[in-house]
Amino acid sequence: MLTGNKVSASVRARDALPSPIRKLTPLADRALADGVSILHLNIGQPDLAAPDALIEGIQQYESRILPYAPSQGVAGTVRAWQRYYQQVGVHYDVSQILVTSGGSEALLFALMAVADPGDEVICFEPTYANYFGFAVMTSVRIVPVPLDPGNGYHLPPAEEIERRITPRTRAILFCSPGNPTGAVFSYDELNVISDIAARHNLFVISDETYREIVFEGPRDMSMAKVEPTADQTIIVDSVSKRFSATGARIGCLATRHQGVLDGIHRFAQARLSAPTVEQRAVIPLLEEPRAYTDPLAEIYRSRRDVVYSELERIPGAFVRKPEGAFYIFAVLPIDDGDRFASWLLTDFRLDGETLMISPGDGFYLTPGLGTSEVRFAYVLEDNALRRGMRILREALAVYPGRTEE
Amino acid sequence: MLTGNKVSASVRARDALPSPIRKLTPLADRALADGVSILHLNIGQPDLAAPDALIEGIQQYESRILPYAPSQGVAGTVRAWQRYYQQVGVHYDVSQILVTSGGSEALLFALMAVADPGDEVICFEPTYANYFGFAVMTSVRIVPVPLDPGNGYHLPPAEEIERRITPRTRAILFCSPGNPTGAVFSYDELNVISDIAARHNLFVISDETYREIVFEGPRDMSMAKVEPTADQTIIVDSVSKRFSATGARIGCLATRHQGVLDGIHRFAQARLSAPTVEQRAVIPLLEEPRAYTDPLAEIYRSRRDVVYSELERIPGAFVRKPEGAFYIFAVLPIDDGDRFASWLLTDFRLDGETLMISPGDGFYLTPGLGTSEVRFAYVLEDNALRRGMRILREALAVYPGRTEE
Repeated sequence: MLTGNKVSASVRARDALPSPIRKLTPLADRALADGVSILHLNIGQPDLAAPDALIEGIQQYESRILPYAPSQGVAGTVRAWQRYYQQVGVHYDVSQILVTSGGSEALLFALMAVADPGDEVICFEPTYANYFGFAVMTSVRIVPVPLDPGNGYHLPPAEEIERRITPRTRAILFCSPGNPTGAVFSYDELNVISDIAARHNLFVISDETYREIVFEGPRDMSMAKVEPTADQTIIVDSVSKRFSATGARIGCLATRHQGVLDGIHRFAQARLSAPTVEQRAVIPLLEEPRAYTDPLAEIYRSRRDVVYSELERIPGAFVRKPEGAFYIFAVLPIDDGDRFASWLLTDFRLDGETLMISPGDGFYLTPGLGTSEVRFAYVLEDNALRRGMRILREALAVYPGRTEE
Repeated sequence: MLTGNKVSASVRARDALPSPIRKLTPLADRALADGVSILHLNIGQPDLAAPDALIEGIQQYESRILPYAPSQGVAGTVRAWQRYYQQVGVHYDVSQILVTSGGSEALLFALMAVADPGDEVICFEPTYANYFGFAVMTSVRIVPVPLDPGNGYHLPPAEEIERRITPRTRAILFCSPGNPTGAVFSYDELNVISDIAARHNLFVISDETYREIVFEGPRDMSMAKVEPTADQTIIVDSVSKRFSATGARIGCLATRHQGVLDGIHRFAQARLSAPTVEQRAVIPLLEEPRAYTDPLAEIYRSRRDVVYSELERIPGAFVRKPEGAFYIFAVLPIDDGDRFASWLLTDFRLDGETLMISPGDGFYLTPGLGTSEVRFAYVLEDNALRRGMRILREALAVYPGRTEE
């Protein structure tokens, strides 16, 4: 501060990084003010209507009183998550489930419950960038294991993971189907993670927010089904993506580990409760998920095909077909993804339109990685995606920082 | 664990304490199952109807899409908090306000933004018990300064506070009007806190959730008006109590300190957003608060008078008249508040009815303090409160752990 204030914020306040997804927003605002229209492929905000039952559940809130929910969650919502997991093929006791304010709070609680300040958690990179933020907030150190674009961001050999384990390692944290990669880890891969966790006494924190958005394999995968480590696995979940309901802020944490359960139930008591109205409104979604998620996965498959086939044809771009979620992470023939994404907003227009994408380096912790990668979230209709890919192709043809192939 | 699981939860998961307010719930459930009716004076859950505009705002959510709100908050909600503070007599720039998931999240962010693991924050005890939980979650150490029932839980001499300051002290955290004490600190007292904070370069975290619920003084007090330390003050706020809307989970953090702002905006980006529907629905409440809060304060004043005058007449009880919020903290002629509160639920009935209250020791961090104190939340109608006080009086007459006076 220049005001002479002698009181300074904490180290963690200073260490927190801006979101790679949201930091270009000021440039977008300026473009909008200039009358440019923007195709938003930068943020995982689905354009799709939420299930009718959710909106109606909100509209039909009938009480004049708006009380706290129980800390663990509205009883009916806890049971609905339990039945949802039964359909996935996993049994949790009611006491093993906590309803959270989005998957975000579940992640924060999971990190706090497995790690103390200075402890380490292994992540794969590129990874969901907000894991970095939660780690800073909880003073936990993320130790990244780089993934290879060449094998579609799937797991590296086990040795690559194991050699990063130290006496302070407490957990392996990952997201499959993956944000930002779209990779879906096979059970062979989940078994590799399980073996390592078992051998080294680590927790597994499995973020399964995109479970049903899978294009080629089963839509009921869960790390909780990998029995050898089921008792040291923490499932982080959310209604946000599979029900196109990001603003509801309803997530879930489920685990069989008693020590973690004791901790998170007490953390949850301190913060009182997740929002009451939305907890009640998501119950019918969790009871009958596939009525919504089956058509949803087909919509995203079609979009994935559009974006993938267009990207494949762009000279100098390298992309592998993702198996799930609604992201494609691609290597582009550019000097720097940050500069390219900014330049699209400040300098490039095609018929008065441009594209907003997320620079890849924000999904990496290791400096220098991801500079020529970007993330596309295919959260627009097929035609808009085609327009977006045309803008991308024409932009790359004239971008001053284009690299030679 | 007895299951042989070799992976153990974090120290902070083990250190987290159960909520003193919620830990007796299993006993209450058993009494209910036996057909006993329970007067709930244990939890700060108002029985009053929320403002019509809030419920209607929820019911009238008209979109089929339920998107994330901006991390900082819905723009209209941020501006509504700004105008709300203008009515309080405090100016904040829009950028200095963050909409949170309840006051709880604002507290968590404030602690993270001022303190790193091992740092210390000074609190007065008895205090809002969830401060202990948030401190455990963030690995911050709470250093308690005991308050004296004899002077109505008002501030002790400045020396009592200052002698607990160490090189690791980062902030003074308090709540006025106070939970659990009902004490409202005067501007003289706020100036004492400000002087100490200024001399020792500490942050002030002022939880002003109950601002308008004041019976004798002004209803627009704020630590933000204490100019010498206004730039190192963080206001934690919430719609929960002043609008009887605890389940909405809408709070606010406001500060002029740039370093804290930078940190909390990034923490907020990591957790994406507070619930969208409720953010929009609280706007009319914040624009016109007094239409609801003026009558509300009168209702609570009447209840305070009922509970206070009844408690005063109970032999062996010691109580001072609280000036705000909706709690009375009282010394009772009992061996142990935990045992007494449990016994009320398990053993005592008057015409098939009993009373649920919060044991006092849970609001203290210093072992041995608060054992003969209890908290009453007067969140029932006058007649129910009278019945509750009659139950209390008759229960005390036969309670086996009654102490001699």
